[in-house]
Amino acid sequence: MFELDGRLAADTFVLGSTSLNRVLLMNDARFPWLILVPERLDVSEPFELSEADQGQLWQESMRLGGAMKAHFAADKINVAALGNQVAQLHVHHIARFHADAAWPGPVWGVGSAVPYEAAAVEALMHELRSVLRQPLSLTEAAQQ
Amino acid sequence: MFELDGRLAADTFVLGSTSLNRVLLMNDARFPWLILVPERLDVSEPFELSEADQGQLWQESMRLGGAMKAHFAADKINVAALGNQVAQLHVHHIARFHADAAWPGPVWGVGSAVPYEAAAVEALMHELRSVLRQPLSLTEAAQQ
Repeated sequence: MFELDGRLAADTFVLGSTSLNRVLLMNDARFPWLILVPERLDVSEPFELSEADQGQLWQESMRLGGAMKAHFAADKINVAALGNQVAQLHVHHIARFHADAAWPGPVWGVGSAVPYEAAAVEALMHELRSVLRQPLSLTEAAQQ
Repeated sequence: MFELDGRLAADTFVLGSTSLNRVLLMNDARFPWLILVPERLDVSEPFELSEADQGQLWQESMRLGGAMKAHFAADKINVAALGNQVAQLHVHHIARFHADAAWPGPVWGVGSAVPYEAAAVEALMHELRSVLRQPLSLTEAAQQ
């Protein structure tokens, strides 16, 4: 049975699930940063998914990126499947701004994550679930 | 008419084209690093492509990643559309190894590119064209 990697679980909040992906919010208030994790066993590379799952992953990734760009009025969306440190396949989506803490470089390895305050993350998750419900057919799974 | 961004052109060699993408080899001998650039005008984000082009981009990206992992016996493939510095949409594919110069971090901003020697890049391009011809339906466009 699919189980979210422990490091991903520790660093994120669960927004919900699509029919393929767990949708996570990174606990770093510096960047609006969402992650898609296909709920499939033993997959590290996106091309290890079935062709149908690959199609759905990238379709949902594109919809998520578009929704994030519009909602946050971002200057750029960064999309990346790296996975050098956490082997479980996960795809980053980060809304970037000309004035953010890492611009114009990538966000990884820059400074330290700034955890959200409880009230702020509650509000943001409520907002994101509303924004993503339609484009991703997001359902609010119980937290795992 | 589509024109490759000047900074991408300066940093890469042209391996060829698919029916959608220009296929580039980054001139950095530290990492096997290929880039797909959809030959479309004024597109910065992958989700700005038509749905058909998005599907083809990611299908070719997955095929490229799979071919690179097998050919180079890589430990991991990193796939990323960042574009903070070069606005023209381009998708990185980097074969990563546990012993490479940036592992386990991302490659961007780590040290300086090590240009290929002329003989080495000729041999590598010959090899890559042979490896990619079938999975990407790669044609060897004239250098632009």
